[in-house]
Amino acid sequence: MSQTFDVAVIGGGPGGYVAAIRAAQLGFSAVCIDNWKNAKGKPSLGGTCLNVGCIPSKALLESSENYHRVIHSFADHGIQTQGVTLDLAKMLARKDKIVDQLTGGIGFLFKKNKVTSMPGLGRFVAGGDIYQIEVVDGEKRETISAKHVVIATGSVSRDLPIAKIDNQLILDNEGALAIPSVPKKLGVIGAGVIGLEMGSVWKRLGAEVTILEALPEFLGAVDEQVAADALKIFTKEQGLAIELGVKIKSVTPANNQVTIEYDGKDGAKQLIVDKLIMAVGRAPNTAGLNLDAVSIKVDAKGFIQVDNHCRTIANNVYAVGDVVRGPMLAHKASEEGVAVAELIAGQKSHVNLDTIPWVIYTAPEIAWVGETEKQLKARSAEYRAGSFPFTANGRAKGLGETHGFVKILADAKTDRILGVHILGPFASELITEAVVAMEFGASSEDIARIVHAHPSLSEVMHEAALAVDKRAVHI
Amino acid sequence: MSQTFDVAVIGGGPGGYVAAIRAAQLGFSAVCIDNWKNAKGKPSLGGTCLNVGCIPSKALLESSENYHRVIHSFADHGIQTQGVTLDLAKMLARKDKIVDQLTGGIGFLFKKNKVTSMPGLGRFVAGGDIYQIEVVDGEKRETISAKHVVIATGSVSRDLPIAKIDNQLILDNEGALAIPSVPKKLGVIGAGVIGLEMGSVWKRLGAEVTILEALPEFLGAVDEQVAADALKIFTKEQGLAIELGVKIKSVTPANNQVTIEYDGKDGAKQLIVDKLIMAVGRAPNTAGLNLDAVSIKVDAKGFIQVDNHCRTIANNVYAVGDVVRGPMLAHKASEEGVAVAELIAGQKSHVNLDTIPWVIYTAPEIAWVGETEKQLKARSAEYRAGSFPFTANGRAKGLGETHGFVKILADAKTDRILGVHILGPFASELITEAVVAMEFGASSEDIARIVHAHPSLSEVMHEAALAVDKRAVHI
Repeated sequence: MSQTFDVAVIGGGPGGYVAAIRAAQLGFSAVCIDNWKNAKGKPSLGGTCLNVGCIPSKALLESSENYHRVIHSFADHGIQTQGVTLDLAKMLARKDKIVDQLTGGIGFLFKKNKVTSMPGLGRFVAGGDIYQIEVVDGEKRETISAKHVVIATGSVSRDLPIAKIDNQLILDNEGALAIPSVPKKLGVIGAGVIGLEMGSVWKRLGAEVTILEALPEFLGAVDEQVAADALKIFTKEQGLAIELGVKIKSVTPANNQVTIEYDGKDGAKQLIVDKLIMAVGRAPNTAGLNLDAVSIKVDAKGFIQVDNHCRTIANNVYAVGDVVRGPMLAHKASEEGVAVAELIAGQKSHVNLDTIPWVIYTAPEIAWVGETEKQLKARSAEYRAGSFPFTANGRAKGLGETHGFVKILADAKTDRILGVHILGPFASELITEAVVAMEFGASSEDIARIVHAHPSLSEVMHEAALAVDKRAVHI
Repeated sequence: MSQTFDVAVIGGGPGGYVAAIRAAQLGFSAVCIDNWKNAKGKPSLGGTCLNVGCIPSKALLESSENYHRVIHSFADHGIQTQGVTLDLAKMLARKDKIVDQLTGGIGFLFKKNKVTSMPGLGRFVAGGDIYQIEVVDGEKRETISAKHVVIATGSVSRDLPIAKIDNQLILDNEGALAIPSVPKKLGVIGAGVIGLEMGSVWKRLGAEVTILEALPEFLGAVDEQVAADALKIFTKEQGLAIELGVKIKSVTPANNQVTIEYDGKDGAKQLIVDKLIMAVGRAPNTAGLNLDAVSIKVDAKGFIQVDNHCRTIANNVYAVGDVVRGPMLAHKASEEGVAVAELIAGQKSHVNLDTIPWVIYTAPEIAWVGETEKQLKARSAEYRAGSFPFTANGRAKGLGETHGFVKILADAKTDRILGVHILGPFASELITEAVVAMEFGASSEDIARIVHAHPSLSEVMHEAALAVDKRAVHI
């Protein structure tokens, strides 16, 4: 007889494993079905984020930044080094160790919270009052039953039909994190988050990097000034070659190299690289779920349709994270996972998609929350803007990281904060203040009147708030 | 005839220069009288903080941390270095350059805002409707008149009568920032903020450091668990020798060394060091102000007595920053400076001393806001506590900085946040979220329900908030 659970979660990434733990905390019997296998072929919880996304990329970003600092900026601190060499295998092993610790940690959390962990692909067999889900793990097949189901199957790298990923020469995000030796020439297709982060890592480690982007605009979703300044820093200072508005015509792997033919601004061009990273976006992952069995539909882009509370059309079936509308961000997925578990328990939880922070972990980092000036103009909103640069900040000078600025956008009449945009050191941490402020409906005047520690990078936020009212002190 | 100003500010540190700029922004004619001279004997605005406090110490903390990382932790990242050597002169020059940029920047801000800058010691001559202040700069004497006066003369290093500071062998905070070669043995008297920060800098650069503290308790104002964990890290891992509850009997400089005789826990002891840093606290600086001329009194500890709005007993005379009650912190002084300028302009500004963030820039950093458990117990407050360690945080693992934790204390009935205590990487930045939350009277549940970016250190704050309700996810 099949095991029966209160809650079955399909997918063990940041949406799914968090939903399963929260459900268990609330007293439900919960199972988490996950199909991820690591390089050794073993089940590895945590999904894209922990296995081949946020976590390993941040480990490599930090390591590569350290490598870059030793070579380029430590002399300025009076730290002289002779003979800096890169042990890439060790750098990659450090990253793998962090991934192992954190993915293994989820197994520990499951045991502690009495979540049943089932490796394998989850597949709807039948719906009704109780859902039947078949779990397929290689040869092994088992069917379980559940009253509530949470789909958290995440997303997969989008493919270009003309560039088949082999993770030898043509790499996806997974391969980009495990190149065994620094390529002399590296190509990246796609100047989004992944393309920029991975391009930066390998550039700092010594590769000559060219990023090709189909869109004519750089980081179109980002504040225009942030994008413009970032582009300048990435190209002129850091030496990334970034070409916008290109049309890829062919991608040909041969003789240990990849040849990309494309139309650029100046006509037809050819780029020959040792490795090519494909970073053209991600698509919702619903393959194998057999959604037809429960009459759930996906939209034109492949997303499972849900309401504001992550409810699908099927009774007691929810979907969270990358597989539904909204930003494809781990923390958004986790919060939806929590909210859904709490909804199942009869609570009133919801996730406010308007105050989800976005981060791009380049150096300097980019982070924002709320609306951009472009969005405000598009809806004819009247607003005031206040900016302040890191170059006038003592902590930034101490760190030697003075690029960038904070910009606060506030309603012209009510002064309520509508958006905050950061290019600068630890933008990923500084944005938190803005998220909290926006959740409380804060005005820029509130931030201006709150004491910020000196010396800290957060003083730049404070001054940007003062600048909204044209009374910044330090500029 | 003497120049007459709407507002005269005595002292050009973070309280004074900010008050002068804000007064000028509000349309007042303002003068800032400041007596600081740099090593070249030239006037240098910014007071202790910019010249010999926060700013140069943070520059050296960063440089020395980098030096330490190259030697001790970069191999772990796969970064191999040979022949790491310290060019201390260059490290100190980098610090001096940052100080010069920022202190020079104030002169620029004064010009831009039309603040008159007068080098010299300000001294009350007479009060009444208009105050007469004599400015003494060496041989030069000039008397100016002002309708409003802001005293922002800061603080000075406290002396022990038995240890005369010469800044050759026995150093104050100024000398501690400019030791020309790394001493083999360094002594520090006082395990407060300055003693710990400077002791850490020189330890990382290679000195053998012993810190002697009169009080039996380590960091008595800090959350007990933070203090206990920090003590363990500083001593067992970082190798600082810290002796508490000592009684200094004599300090004798001779033959390029300093001998300290003291009673320790195990009886009489002797410590011989190459340099000794005195860091036994700071005292309000009112010397030379001639406060009697305007009938202003200081209290038993030397602080100028003011009300909640920084008003002294003398009409239209205010005092801000280290020279009055409240924490001796640059950002507190600046906010008081702003508030006073705005009060003079008829606004209702005030500074909430209950939400001033405190930071100690050790590694890991310590930061807090609000009450400690000890304070809550002392007033029999019922509270709930939630903690979460950095060791379970992906960003901290990426950074390789996993020591410490965040603890949130919330009212047991209302859940309102009463205090937040952090030991960990970038605590100085993470505390900002807590300050903003407390200013809005947030509950721990508010923080628990706000989306925090992944991966970020701020997730530790989020989990600590969840832990208050015993529903942390990742532990």
